[in-house]
Amino acid sequence: MKFKTIKAIGLTALFLVLSDITFAQQYEPLLLLSKSEAKNISQHLGDYKILGKSFSKVKMDADKALEKPIEVPIPIDNGGGYTHEKHKKNYRDLYYAGLAFQVTAEKKYAKFVEQMLLEYAKIYPGLPLHPKRKAEQNSGKLFWQGLNDCVWLVNGIQAYDLVKESIGPKNRAIIERDVFRSMAAFLSESESGKDTFNKIHNHGTWAVAAVGMTGYVLGDKDMVVRALTGSSKDKKSGFLKQIDMLFSPDGYYSEGPYYQRYALQPFMVFAEAINRNQPELKIFEYRNQLLKKASNTVLQLTDSNGYFFPINDALKEKNFMTEELVFATNIVFENYSDTSILPVIQQQNEVSITGAGLKSSEAVQNMKKQEFVKDPMIITDGPEGKSGGLALFRMDTKKKDEQLTAVFKFASQGMGHGHFDRLGIMLFNNDREILQDYGAARFLNVESKNGGRYLDENKTWAQQSVAHNTVIVDEKSHYNGDWKEAEKQVPHTVFSDISNPKIIQIASAVENNAYAGVEMQRTVALIGAEMPFVLDIFSLKSKEKHQYDLNFMFSGQIMETNFDYVPSLTNLTPLGKDNGYQHLWKLAEAKGNQGLSKFTWLNDSRFYTISTLTDDSNKVVVTRLGANDPNFNLRNESGYMIRTNDKQNYTFVSVIEPHGSFDAKLESVQDPHSKLESIQVLKQDENYTAILVNFKNNKSYTLIFANKETSSTSKHKIFLKGKNMEWKGSYTLITN
Amino acid sequence: MKFKTIKAIGLTALFLVLSDITFAQQYEPLLLLSKSEAKNISQHLGDYKILGKSFSKVKMDADKALEKPIEVPIPIDNGGGYTHEKHKKNYRDLYYAGLAFQVTAEKKYAKFVEQMLLEYAKIYPGLPLHPKRKAEQNSGKLFWQGLNDCVWLVNGIQAYDLVKESIGPKNRAIIERDVFRSMAAFLSESESGKDTFNKIHNHGTWAVAAVGMTGYVLGDKDMVVRALTGSSKDKKSGFLKQIDMLFSPDGYYSEGPYYQRYALQPFMVFAEAINRNQPELKIFEYRNQLLKKASNTVLQLTDSNGYFFPINDALKEKNFMTEELVFATNIVFENYSDTSILPVIQQQNEVSITGAGLKSSEAVQNMKKQEFVKDPMIITDGPEGKSGGLALFRMDTKKKDEQLTAVFKFASQGMGHGHFDRLGIMLFNNDREILQDYGAARFLNVESKNGGRYLDENKTWAQQSVAHNTVIVDEKSHYNGDWKEAEKQVPHTVFSDISNPKIIQIASAVENNAYAGVEMQRTVALIGAEMPFVLDIFSLKSKEKHQYDLNFMFSGQIMETNFDYVPSLTNLTPLGKDNGYQHLWKLAEAKGNQGLSKFTWLNDSRFYTISTLTDDSNKVVVTRLGANDPNFNLRNESGYMIRTNDKQNYTFVSVIEPHGSFDAKLESVQDPHSKLESIQVLKQDENYTAILVNFKNNKSYTLIFANKETSSTSKHKIFLKGKNMEWKGSYTLITN
Repeated sequence: MKFKTIKAIGLTALFLVLSDITFAQQYEPLLLLSKSEAKNISQHLGDYKILGKSFSKVKMDADKALEKPIEVPIPIDNGGGYTHEKHKKNYRDLYYAGLAFQVTAEKKYAKFVEQMLLEYAKIYPGLPLHPKRKAEQNSGKLFWQGLNDCVWLVNGIQAYDLVKESIGPKNRAIIERDVFRSMAAFLSESESGKDTFNKIHNHGTWAVAAVGMTGYVLGDKDMVVRALTGSSKDKKSGFLKQIDMLFSPDGYYSEGPYYQRYALQPFMVFAEAINRNQPELKIFEYRNQLLKKASNTVLQLTDSNGYFFPINDALKEKNFMTEELVFATNIVFENYSDTSILPVIQQQNEVSITGAGLKSSEAVQNMKKQEFVKDPMIITDGPEGKSGGLALFRMDTKKKDEQLTAVFKFASQGMGHGHFDRLGIMLFNNDREILQDYGAARFLNVESKNGGRYLDENKTWAQQSVAHNTVIVDEKSHYNGDWKEAEKQVPHTVFSDISNPKIIQIASAVENNAYAGVEMQRTVALIGAEMPFVLDIFSLKSKEKHQYDLNFMFSGQIMETNFDYVPSLTNLTPLGKDNGYQHLWKLAEAKGNQGLSKFTWLNDSRFYTISTLTDDSNKVVVTRLGANDPNFNLRNESGYMIRTNDKQNYTFVSVIEPHGSFDAKLESVQDPHSKLESIQVLKQDENYTAILVNFKNNKSYTLIFANKETSSTSKHKIFLKGKNMEWKGSYTLITN
Repeated sequence: MKFKTIKAIGLTALFLVLSDITFAQQYEPLLLLSKSEAKNISQHLGDYKILGKSFSKVKMDADKALEKPIEVPIPIDNGGGYTHEKHKKNYRDLYYAGLAFQVTAEKKYAKFVEQMLLEYAKIYPGLPLHPKRKAEQNSGKLFWQGLNDCVWLVNGIQAYDLVKESIGPKNRAIIERDVFRSMAAFLSESESGKDTFNKIHNHGTWAVAAVGMTGYVLGDKDMVVRALTGSSKDKKSGFLKQIDMLFSPDGYYSEGPYYQRYALQPFMVFAEAINRNQPELKIFEYRNQLLKKASNTVLQLTDSNGYFFPINDALKEKNFMTEELVFATNIVFENYSDTSILPVIQQQNEVSITGAGLKSSEAVQNMKKQEFVKDPMIITDGPEGKSGGLALFRMDTKKKDEQLTAVFKFASQGMGHGHFDRLGIMLFNNDREILQDYGAARFLNVESKNGGRYLDENKTWAQQSVAHNTVIVDEKSHYNGDWKEAEKQVPHTVFSDISNPKIIQIASAVENNAYAGVEMQRTVALIGAEMPFVLDIFSLKSKEKHQYDLNFMFSGQIMETNFDYVPSLTNLTPLGKDNGYQHLWKLAEAKGNQGLSKFTWLNDSRFYTISTLTDDSNKVVVTRLGANDPNFNLRNESGYMIRTNDKQNYTFVSVIEPHGSFDAKLESVQDPHSKLESIQVLKQDENYTAILVNFKNNKSYTLIFANKETSSTSKHKIFLKGKNMEWKGSYTLITN
């Protein structure tokens, strides 16, 4: 396998090179911005518009910082509190002043950095662990968690790198000893820090980047080797192992795009520093240009406004305009000359003040406005690409600039930030969430909300299966809500195909370990039609009887149902007792229709209907989030659930259908009612499933697929509706 | 009084002129687009960008219409249903084809209009009242309500006006007789139509505009006179009476901005037609250029994105980009040469294909991007300007492009679309609703939602007092929810001042008739400070004991309170039985603090805190909308209520304070806690109120005001904190 060979070469080469590094102590910047690049930037501030804009922001912030007295408070506060925010501001001020010094050559900026670092030197060595540390998280000294200390160091060492040429030997010695060596030791060698430093986790990446960059600047070979190969230097951890383990061959990061964005900054920034100091490591070629794929994949995992799909613990406010991705896109462009990324840089409308930023701003200077191309993708998960994955279906509607995106997740757990969302889906219309994932329950840095940390409801609701668009068995979450158990098992891709993206995009995956003795298989297809629709077949098999709940967290206002329901008008009670169910108010209950149960809502300018095959043994429940929420921590999202009881084997077959339009400006409404006529299961046995979907305009779609893995060239034949149907590969779609 | 004189002159002149009109039957267009203007447009499509864009949209729609067979179905459906939408589409197609004919001179467009009108001629005279008509609303023939028939005619007659030159005499006769005369007779003379035609109401305005314009085109003097002076020609109704009665001297329309937008189209379009056919009426000068003021006022009553403040029955999706206001702004510019309106036309990025649109597109062609200036305003209500009004407070914060707007409403009822929101306030930060008004409960034209009409919940919730940010007495709505009673009484302005807009904007108003025996006075000030804040003093006086509820419908997520509350974790019940209270779930309850009760929420990038003086006899309730809502018609908004029981006289004193910031991109949070230290009532007697507000930064603000009306030059003196305070006018603000 090609990938393995290259990885092997990478490691061998690294080993040779590492044993051979010598550092000449230099006083010119060594990390992301060289002296000549800084000069070049100062000469082109007027030429490259976004460079000028970005630098003037940096300089303005630096100037503001210089106006105020330097303050380095003894750390006492939680996230969002005064000292927390002050130390964050300090590392930004340091970094911006460092940049301003290199670009303007004005000594006052360097002086500011020197003085502030001397203040840190006074307190840092004597600081105890942070008083607001939490038992379950590794503590920092400046901040309640060690992670923030690492981020401080990534910024602080760059600031020092940029100005050290102007600091005299005595102060250099103080700063290096009492700030940088002390901090690097704390973060990579102390009892408290070492653990995180060696973790295969984004916290670990920030730690190794911080320490590794410090190593380059201080000329400390040992620090660099530790950063690259782990504190035992056994390559079982460290930066390279992190690249190996945290990304799939397609560049998917198991914690999901929100954390991928966050982790990408130290990955890319440290890689850039490595490449500038040890180009012979060819870090950007490592693992088939993995860092390029990782950047592209995270950019693809966004809605039409660049907001990350809220997979796992994710805050929905984040998009690819954040600083982390400004660094990443610039570095990708610099090192891979990849012009496909330029539209993103254009949208970011900001560059990093680095060599990479200089090249990027030049490239977009005279470029016409372009859209970043968002394609359907099948993204594998796992270091070997064998731990399931993610299907990203995208189809344009006939309306200009309208794209539907269905995300089908059959990926691995994503460690402690992972959600119990096996075989879950999401649906977007451009930037609108239609079927949503709650993301994380957290108000980042808001002191009044649990000190800005994850809220209790993140565990009790957001991570639970019922917070997702998937099936929940017996009101328990997948893997009983134990992420360490979940981490041991991965879903399996049965087949996927996006080769005819205008006709059908499809994937089928199984998850056989989420519940003991229950096999789950979901097949999701986005099918091209007058209006693209999702066909969703969720099969459950078990020898025991269970309750199966197919849940949809929809967003929008309920418009109509084709079944009668009993609303709870004057008394709400929770849907269940535990596993997230305790947070859902039961708003209405119904028996399923004999045939199709339809549920229609309005979101912005479109109607959406979920139509599910049911009979009167099904229960249908409408829910709203908010029960058992004493601190008003939850958003009050809406849910729709189709339930069946006492079943061994059961298959939910649904069509999710955007339809019609609502135009407030023109006061015009089209097709507020579902256009689906019927769904029929033509066949379902051990080997094959065949579903016929009829629309009211007499168009029909028959999807037939093999339930088990089969080669793309295998031939299949089944007898259906009095005819022999033959096809090649895992599935076929017949349109009439 | 100047205004009265001018009005008198207007009417006299009109009388003379009306008795004197003669019409020469013309075949060239008479209404909004003359033959030479059309030619001019066709020559400048390439020169004036927004003209070219606007016309190509019109032409594209006309071309699409021409491709399909003409269909004029027998009316059967409700709003949003097929025949409803089809007849709406038909009048648009007619109008666009008419415009396309005049601008391109291509006969096919005229032929299309002729043929479609002939189809209407076949069915119209024989049509019965619409089968889906409602007892309480006047019926149309093409549509369920007569209003839509009027809108059809406003468009249809313009289309005919534009193409009649190319129709032979025989077909002209058929069309005029069986479509236009028949329709005008139905709308202005039939039992069903006459009532609306003579109403002082926006439905009436659409009716008189439709019939009046038809009169000009058919050369029917009687129709025109009827339209201008009412069907009895006694000037007790008709267009001029509508201008007199429906607007205040400041151009406020008693139904509120949402309906003002809607009514403005027939007002402006008909005025333009009048001005082109009877310029001697000087309709644009009428009532001190009332139509110009009306246009400006409605544009001012919008948030930073041009969305109308949702006063009374209003849908929040509407902004000043709608077609109605494109007509209005263009006509204002043409007739008043008012360049202050050009930034709105620029934002609309569209013009009407009329003489006015031509002039407007020329004016904005080379204009730099400008912002429409939004100023603080005191807007009087009532035909004489004596029925209370609306205070529109606006203050910029220190953040770039951030403006706070507080709306204080002490206006008249606004007829059947009015809400029971006496002395209510709203608060906006740019386009974000911070303290909101629900607007109307309606999904316009969505058939599945009560045929697109107002929902039951509009009466049971949206119009009720508790849906607003005001005081509710004994859980009953103002005027017991009877709009006809409410229509008889108006609030009274005690004083208002916006002359030092950066320091303080203030208004005080009383409402003594909403509840028998209860005098209500609210004084609201937006005060300039490090961050502007609202000081809100709501006084109630009664000889009987009552329950007083000060309600705030806030939007955002609750962050913290400084009082302990008991949350309803596993069981929700409604707050009350009736008058809107039955729709509020009670989420939490608390006793007020001794001193200040603080309630903080987050909305977008700011925190907001309401701090109210309380003691432990106050109850505090947190609510959420959604109880007793069997059809899921309501949005689930949030409420916060401070209650007091068994009180005769009581004053709620609150500070509403934006503070801090939440920046997801930078992950930075500032000042999540209220910065208010204390509120003190220094004095409150029959004549004066004095309130001291202290912030934690030691800034303090003392507001002293006379409770009763007093002249702006009167001198006042009170003894306060051991000192004599003297000032001139209704109030003074002392800042330390």
